[in-house]
Amino acid sequence: MSADDALVIFTPSGKRGRVPKGTAVLAAARKLGVDLDSVCGGRGICSKCQVAPAYGRFAKHGVTVAEDALSPVNAVERRYDEKRGLKPGRRLGCQATIEGDAVIDVPPESQVHRQVVRKSADARPIVMDPATRALMVEVAEPDMHEPTGDLERLNRALAAQWGVRPASAPLPVLAGLQPALRKGKWQVTVALHQETEDAAPRILDIWPGFYEGGLYGLAIDLGSTTIAAHLTDLVTGTVKHSAGIMNPQIRFGEDLMSRVSYSMMHEGGAGEMTAAVRAALNDLAREIAAEAGVEPRAIVEAVFVCNPVMHHLLLGIDPVELGQAPFALATSDALRLGAAELGLDAINPAARAYLLPCIAGHVGADAAAVALAEAPDKSDDLVLIVDVGTNAEILLGNRARVLACSSPTGPAFEGAQISSGQRAAPGAIERVEIDPATKEPRFKVIGCDLWSDDPGFGAEVEKTGITGICGSGIIEAVAEMRMAGLVDPSGLIGSAEQTGSPRCEADGRTHAYRIHDGTEAGGPRITVTQGDIRAIQLAKSALYAGARLLMDRMEVDRVDRIVLAGAFGAHISPKHAMVLGMIPDAPLDRVRSAGNAAGTGARIALCNRAARGAIEKTVKAIHKVETAVEPRFQEHFVAANALPHATAPFPELAQVVTLPKVNFGASGEGGGRRRRRR
Amino acid sequence: MSADDALVIFTPSGKRGRVPKGTAVLAAARKLGVDLDSVCGGRGICSKCQVAPAYGRFAKHGVTVAEDALSPVNAVERRYDEKRGLKPGRRLGCQATIEGDAVIDVPPESQVHRQVVRKSADARPIVMDPATRALMVEVAEPDMHEPTGDLERLNRALAAQWGVRPASAPLPVLAGLQPALRKGKWQVTVALHQETEDAAPRILDIWPGFYEGGLYGLAIDLGSTTIAAHLTDLVTGTVKHSAGIMNPQIRFGEDLMSRVSYSMMHEGGAGEMTAAVRAALNDLAREIAAEAGVEPRAIVEAVFVCNPVMHHLLLGIDPVELGQAPFALATSDALRLGAAELGLDAINPAARAYLLPCIAGHVGADAAAVALAEAPDKSDDLVLIVDVGTNAEILLGNRARVLACSSPTGPAFEGAQISSGQRAAPGAIERVEIDPATKEPRFKVIGCDLWSDDPGFGAEVEKTGITGICGSGIIEAVAEMRMAGLVDPSGLIGSAEQTGSPRCEADGRTHAYRIHDGTEAGGPRITVTQGDIRAIQLAKSALYAGARLLMDRMEVDRVDRIVLAGAFGAHISPKHAMVLGMIPDAPLDRVRSAGNAAGTGARIALCNRAARGAIEKTVKAIHKVETAVEPRFQEHFVAANALPHATAPFPELAQVVTLPKVNFGASGEGGGRRRRRR
Repeated sequence: MSADDALVIFTPSGKRGRVPKGTAVLAAARKLGVDLDSVCGGRGICSKCQVAPAYGRFAKHGVTVAEDALSPVNAVERRYDEKRGLKPGRRLGCQATIEGDAVIDVPPESQVHRQVVRKSADARPIVMDPATRALMVEVAEPDMHEPTGDLERLNRALAAQWGVRPASAPLPVLAGLQPALRKGKWQVTVALHQETEDAAPRILDIWPGFYEGGLYGLAIDLGSTTIAAHLTDLVTGTVKHSAGIMNPQIRFGEDLMSRVSYSMMHEGGAGEMTAAVRAALNDLAREIAAEAGVEPRAIVEAVFVCNPVMHHLLLGIDPVELGQAPFALATSDALRLGAAELGLDAINPAARAYLLPCIAGHVGADAAAVALAEAPDKSDDLVLIVDVGTNAEILLGNRARVLACSSPTGPAFEGAQISSGQRAAPGAIERVEIDPATKEPRFKVIGCDLWSDDPGFGAEVEKTGITGICGSGIIEAVAEMRMAGLVDPSGLIGSAEQTGSPRCEADGRTHAYRIHDGTEAGGPRITVTQGDIRAIQLAKSALYAGARLLMDRMEVDRVDRIVLAGAFGAHISPKHAMVLGMIPDAPLDRVRSAGNAAGTGARIALCNRAARGAIEKTVKAIHKVETAVEPRFQEHFVAANALPHATAPFPELAQVVTLPKVNFGASGEGGGRRRRRR
Repeated sequence: MSADDALVIFTPSGKRGRVPKGTAVLAAARKLGVDLDSVCGGRGICSKCQVAPAYGRFAKHGVTVAEDALSPVNAVERRYDEKRGLKPGRRLGCQATIEGDAVIDVPPESQVHRQVVRKSADARPIVMDPATRALMVEVAEPDMHEPTGDLERLNRALAAQWGVRPASAPLPVLAGLQPALRKGKWQVTVALHQETEDAAPRILDIWPGFYEGGLYGLAIDLGSTTIAAHLTDLVTGTVKHSAGIMNPQIRFGEDLMSRVSYSMMHEGGAGEMTAAVRAALNDLAREIAAEAGVEPRAIVEAVFVCNPVMHHLLLGIDPVELGQAPFALATSDALRLGAAELGLDAINPAARAYLLPCIAGHVGADAAAVALAEAPDKSDDLVLIVDVGTNAEILLGNRARVLACSSPTGPAFEGAQISSGQRAAPGAIERVEIDPATKEPRFKVIGCDLWSDDPGFGAEVEKTGITGICGSGIIEAVAEMRMAGLVDPSGLIGSAEQTGSPRCEADGRTHAYRIHDGTEAGGPRITVTQGDIRAIQLAKSALYAGARLLMDRMEVDRVDRIVLAGAFGAHISPKHAMVLGMIPDAPLDRVRSAGNAAGTGARIALCNRAARGAIEKTVKAIHKVETAVEPRFQEHFVAANALPHATAPFPELAQVVTLPKVNFGASGEGGGRRRRRR
């Protein structure tokens, strides 16, 4: 410690140390291992290193900070302030030097590894540590007498200024290097991709001088029915824009098994489906970039989560082996490749793609993403996670052990194979309540905040109309029908006579419950038919049976908590799900919706490169259960057909809901045909 | 040592050790670190592990080998012998087991690291150790209850059976994995590429069962004027077929500088030239594969050597920076990439490409290849290596230090810019002798073994005709003219009166020497004009000046030996080259032709992966001299215009040849304009 040293304390980290007077704040932060961002490398351009010095007496730190603890605001900072504005009290860490004992706060936006705020309170935070960063670098000019390539000098500069190992550059990027260096007067910003400290870095793009455009990634949840993408800022982690489209492969088959069949039956069928999904991804990427006002070149990464069949079709691998035992994946490990190899050419041509690992032939990268987002392997209590979609991914576990399986629920939960079903879009009935006394329904429609019995609903709903019923709507409707005594435990709808409700209309040899009749106004008539109930029963039985099978393997009869995930899992009411027996009995307040957990997992893998290695390790430890060949699955499936269940007691549900004891059939008949869909 | 052990001695390595009786010869070889090949991994299919056991008393080894030292020939060996024939005395190393003390010879063709025989006696041998090998592997079948991807199980098998680290597979290869495994009944042969022990291996192709087709690589010498390719067997190292074509970029400019100019003058010009050379490479690859009867898919590697301008144009990089000081390369390090990235799609789609490093902006990967082939850095004596082409690459050095430069000789040495010049093809005059007394010439023509004054020449030459004079022919012609007193030291051709030869005909204000007049038979008239002499003088002055500049830097006045390299360096007569003063004075028996040393360097890099790292290291240590900005180069160039030289004494030459003292001009005039070509 010398008289020329000053004590500097950084908050909120509390890191402290002595540095020679005259040391720039940025340099001091680097020396002390304080997380302070910089893109321009201390040239006073990027302003990422903004800090907020504090003055006065700090008893906690045992230090008094004088007014002149930092150097006076200099010309670079004044120019920056004039040009772009610096918040009061803020300094540029690369310009301000430490001249006396100092306490310096690093605001969240100046931290490289800042946390991304997530909506759900119990969601784990995402810590930013993306694989691709923008780094500005000053490159030595070429010397004819010590000849070296421009790339080699760029690499030397990256090593000296950023501590980066020699990076490679794809040929098209290399072709742009010399013009960029000369246009930028030997200063360029590179998009540098490096996934781990051991991995060889790769230059994805080069811009002359300081590049201000930002870098983005796409987190893509490639489902059988829909494709959702989240354009994510790779610095802040915020989702700049989200968009979704239908998976055009639907024309080859609604569920996964029918797509596998298409490939088996049609020469080149897999190739057609690959081309279709890749074209759709490009459309989606273009749309999302345009809507967000982000240039496609700034999108330098894409992370994919999907089920195994979609995984193979995206990669251009015929999924035929996934259609028959032993359901062998061509590859199960995570994949790192060029986005262009996947035909994704609507973004930066050198963009990198990452596919999460698959867990098994029926348990895909989407389940891995759910595991990443919900971390059952880090849960103290036993958690059941069901990712509800055309295929359900089910995880059960805690710190000790995690099991996984998939279950072929079919598309009923997404409103398909339902007489008035439609996807969740404006006009769709998404919530239903039925008065147990009057048996009269009221409902809510997507795009309208009022209930159907609220004053003004008729006028308000005109802009969307009432067009059908979506997945969450049909689940609530069937559960409410059961709660109102319109449906018996076997799933039979009673007649008007049996139920006392004229809405229970004859429909051939069965009955249907009318929720809404819009025919007078030229709209549809929306009913829940006996066929709809059967479809929901099949789907929920598959889901329950899968969960139950994992519980058998875990040798437990109950779970501590349940997480409902999936694009529409967010909209399922836990109570209604339990009335239907979609999920095992559990305290209702321990059933939580996690929204699109697979999409969140994709975002985590996009924002935090270490999460990739972590989930790859986790997935290897997950024990997979194959439902397709498990005799007990069939037993559980049959027993789960009743509402909520033929034999399981559901005591937690009974504390909240009393289900009417009704029986509209001969002998509780109603077991569905077992249909397997993937 | 136990009674159940046997002593086994392998020749020629002399490696010896004890193994349990019953050990297969292949297993014993692996245990003792003996180089014994195998592709099928010991399944008795590939026959690569053939050995020749020896019997009787071996005093040298102190062992007597009984007749039953090896197990009897078994069914697998008999079947193989019947099907394909096994040489007498040969055994399959994977089948024969050691049952007593044994002496076992590993014939050269059974060694992985066999040496490739090269024609030139003093050439360094090439030891086979290619980056890509064929490996047969038996993969575990998938297990639904322990799900893993087929690639992951293939990798486990490669690790267990071949000690290989986990390999990646490009998507199209991955797409072929599942069908290949099932067709091959869980046995496949993979083409595995791994450049160093540290590098991640890559699967380039997969064949069901045992693949017998062989693996090949292309060693490509991409010159300004011609492109030559050698299809090389990656197991034996033998050149299966060679072919060459003209570089189609000639239409954009004959020399490198004019191609750089084309790029500067024409928007998209560099792209046009890139497309042209890539198309030509595909044509050449297709042609060579077809002529060799090798399927394009079997060609899994390509190594490129070329000058910096060709290097950049091949890569798709605008060479504009190479046309002006400081001649900055976009990248100088060696490049490893997919051949497809270079548009080379006529070979295996996953084939790998390797480009040797460039030494400087004017000293390319071709010079690096010459350094690899001729190894000046391993020479005890001071060696000058000149690679003669449109641009000459010059290396001077020994173990202590190596210098390099390039010199713009222009295309005269290749027969271009010569009045009767043509490329070396049937019909071209390639050798010339002039009788010093009669001044009458005789010559030889490519495609005809007779001299022009031999009986029967006229009839024999009819099949090709006498069409022109090639590079080596013009060099000999000019040198012979000088030796016969037809040309004076300044390069002037004397008149018929001055020389006493009626063949010295008036040609405008100068004279031309008639070598052959075929006009009566409808053929051309072949003369050496004053312009031809000037063109040769310019070219040889540039070459000499470059060599001399390196000698200045090395602070030497003479070199110990000279190597003439380059596609046509092989055909240059050392005596004639020295009479012209193309090269510095040296003992004639220490001047050697190395043939196409750049092509040889490419072959070495193709056959021996360690050579790649080695030359990359060597190149970094080579000191580069930039001729373009060196004032002394200009001085040397002017002084070198005379034949052989205005001031340098050439004492070694004087011991062999006495040059007539003639002077056909006013005052020894004849200095050429300095023209710079790249």
